[in-house]
Amino acid sequence: MIKKMEYKDYKVWKIEVKNAVAWVTIDNPPVNLIDMNFLEDMERFFTQVKTDDDVKVIVFQSADPEFFISHFDVTALTDFPEETGPVATELTGWKKFFMEFRTLPKVTIAKIEGIVGGGGNEFCLSLDMRFGAIGKAVFSQSEASIGIIAGGGGTHWLTHLMGRSRALEVMLGVLPYSAEIAERYGWINRALPADKIGQFVEMIANSIANIPSKTIAIVKQSVVVAEEMSRKEALLEEGHLFAIAASLLESKGKMNQALDIGLQTREFELYPKRILEGLKKLFGE
Amino acid sequence: MIKKMEYKDYKVWKIEVKNAVAWVTIDNPPVNLIDMNFLEDMERFFTQVKTDDDVKVIVFQSADPEFFISHFDVTALTDFPEETGPVATELTGWKKFFMEFRTLPKVTIAKIEGIVGGGGNEFCLSLDMRFGAIGKAVFSQSEASIGIIAGGGGTHWLTHLMGRSRALEVMLGVLPYSAEIAERYGWINRALPADKIGQFVEMIANSIANIPSKTIAIVKQSVVVAEEMSRKEALLEEGHLFAIAASLLESKGKMNQALDIGLQTREFELYPKRILEGLKKLFGE
Amino acid sequence: MIKKMEYKDYKVWKIEVKNAVAWVTIDNPPVNLIDMNFLEDMERFFTQVKTDDDVKVIVFQSADPEFFISHFDVTALTDFPEETGPVATELTGWKKFFMEFRTLPKVTIAKIEGIVGGGGNEFCLSLDMRFGAIGKAVFSQSEASIGIIAGGGGTHWLTHLMGRSRALEVMLGVLPYSAEIAERYGWINRALPADKIGQFVEMIANSIANIPSKTIAIVKQSVVVAEEMSRKEALLEEGHLFAIAASLLESKGKMNQALDIGLQTREFELYPKRILEGLKKLFGE
Repeated sequence: MIKKMEYKDYKVWKIEVKNAVAWVTIDNPPVNLIDMNFLEDMERFFTQVKTDDDVKVIVFQSADPEFFISHFDVTALTDFPEETGPVATELTGWKKFFMEFRTLPKVTIAKIEGIVGGGGNEFCLSLDMRFGAIGKAVFSQSEASIGIIAGGGGTHWLTHLMGRSRALEVMLGVLPYSAEIAERYGWINRALPADKIGQFVEMIANSIANIPSKTIAIVKQSVVVAEEMSRKEALLEEGHLFAIAASLLESKGKMNQALDIGLQTREFELYPKRILEGLKKLFGE
Repeated sequence: MIKKMEYKDYKVWKIEVKNAVAWVTIDNPPVNLIDMNFLEDMERFFTQVKTDDDVKVIVFQSADPEFFISHFDVTALTDFPEETGPVATELTGWKKFFMEFRTLPKVTIAKIEGIVGGGGNEFCLSLDMRFGAIGKAVFSQSEASIGIIAGGGGTHWLTHLMGRSRALEVMLGVLPYSAEIAERYGWINRALPADKIGQFVEMIANSIANIPSKTIAIVKQSVVVAEEMSRKEALLEEGHLFAIAASLLESKGKMNQALDIGLQTREFELYPKRILEGLKKLFGE
Repeated sequence: MIKKMEYKDYKVWKIEVKNAVAWVTIDNPPVNLIDMNFLEDMERFFTQVKTDDDVKVIVFQSADPEFFISHFDVTALTDFPEETGPVATELTGWKKFFMEFRTLPKVTIAKIEGIVGGGGNEFCLSLDMRFGAIGKAVFSQSEASIGIIAGGGGTHWLTHLMGRSRALEVMLGVLPYSAEIAERYGWINRALPADKIGQFVEMIANSIANIPSKTIAIVKQSVVVAEEMSRKEALLEEGHLFAIAASLLESKGKMNQALDIGLQTREFELYPKRILEGLKKLFGE
């Protein structure tokens, strides 16, 4: 029997693994600042979890009902060197971590129920999915108000998520945004009622945790392929990834099982309609 | 007098051409599966319609009020070879057809009033526009639940339509989605009231059918240019396409005709405002 | 004392500079057509403003409550040469201006309270942000109805803003669109109540005008970097731009000032929540 990975000795993160989902609770009073403790925990966690085959999904949440992650510790920036060197040739520090989150063969989710801004928002942008609580989540990317910019990927990912016009509005207007507008701008996947977001994220995390690990890895890879290759190359590579997925014994088992219980019969195929009605009742439209 | 193309001997598609619009009704009980009959009809139709100058717009709809297109026949996948070859060098099969839909100098529209998923959804993604009926359309891309992925362009087009975060949510959360959320995610052009979607699609199809064939071809080409060329190249090519369109005798006739009936007068230019008020009354906001 | 730039002798534009915001009012009866007078004013204004260090933000608005900018003067197009030359190698004319708007180290905003279409819409697409008045703004890109295409960047920017499916719907369906749908399609940043859009645009313009000029220039550059470079290159360049911004004396002053007045204390960090509540009361959700 293989020993379960233990997540101990963290300073400001608390990690609990249930049913292949790692629930990471950020608890760094008074405002969940990204300081040295936070960064150490991030590095330690990432190093551990990437080799932990028991974890398929990672959900980040906050112990503080008013703050998700405020921002990067500004005291570390006030004596920035006046001489700026040449453009770097390799990603380092948290930018490197953030990029690794994107290609990690596990799914990362932010459950945002409070204020998030600056580097905290950049942390969220590096994750696979973001859900925001209506009336509680508050989003901003306001570095420009103190003369600097969102240099940890913020200018890059905001532009790609919401387009240049809205990204410029957010980064230069330096206003706070509600979950509803964040959803409309593509900043988050969806705005959910504050009393239902926990249930929703638990449902989707557990649903993903039911997918075979290899399939999760292939789907995440397919999205990178879609984003980074030219059209034709990407479609050919997608075909190749499909062949790998379809050739897995686990997939064949699941396909046969689905056929056995009625896949392709009218009754079975109507099932999504009933699920959707249930989702509407629970989480609204 | 040139003979009209006849669309006969189809197995599960019924095709009727009215005013330069081909209405294709999919009728493949029990759940509009993509099986051999469907694929044969698709190939036959595509071969015919691409040489049919009488058709400017193609609308796909379903004979079944509960299903648009369910998905690809899974029985054809359960004995997928265990050895996967190298990445292919050319698009083949339906991926090739799907790409040809995109560059066809005709406009393709899906009127989705029922359940659509898997390969059925990939079929829709390959078309130019998608409209969904509120309360009736149900969208999913849930291959991962049986271990496989959306290998017919699904991972590619979903990522481009809705961004990686929502595409990952859809493909790994394996949940069904309503027309309203599909619209917000960019999955479909618009969600319409179920009792009005027919009228809306008829209106827009007929409106497009009034555009000169050459202009339709040039507009579709301009979108491919926008997507595939670098910014400067694309803008220069757009200028070239404009010159071609503006030099057409048919365009000059239409420009002069518009000027004759009042283009650039205040009364004429207020016309869109009145049309918009009518659209709001008919189809809501 | 440096002399303030004066904006005089304009034919159909009126320019007033207040608190680093240039308010440009378009007044070209009867329908704010893009004619020779408009184009001359555009060129003159652009030449002046790009060297005017007193201006950080430019807002375009209309003197006519029913029209923002109708479209390009069609009488100039009816005798377009029948022979079309080769693809040009350099951007010229208004396409060149439009591209320069995008990289200008100042922020450009359209406050759209009436009808806008054709070249008028292309003008708006070339600006950094667009806001539309609910019930008053009417959007279209309908060149195809007279056989031509949106050759001044319209096919390019619409495709990038709203994706190919909605861009094809707009350009080939040739229908008018409300501010609400324009927001959902990504055509504009946001739809605002008609009696509040003035206050909103004034607020955001003044908020941007408080950002240091150098930071505005760097943020705009970061968005171009995000759009045009490959992922890794872009992230490395963003890091470099961050270092430049963080090394500015003005930035260090602002960071220290923010820390002095309570940045990173719980009370200070709750501030965005209170601002957001105020914004919701003023402008709705």
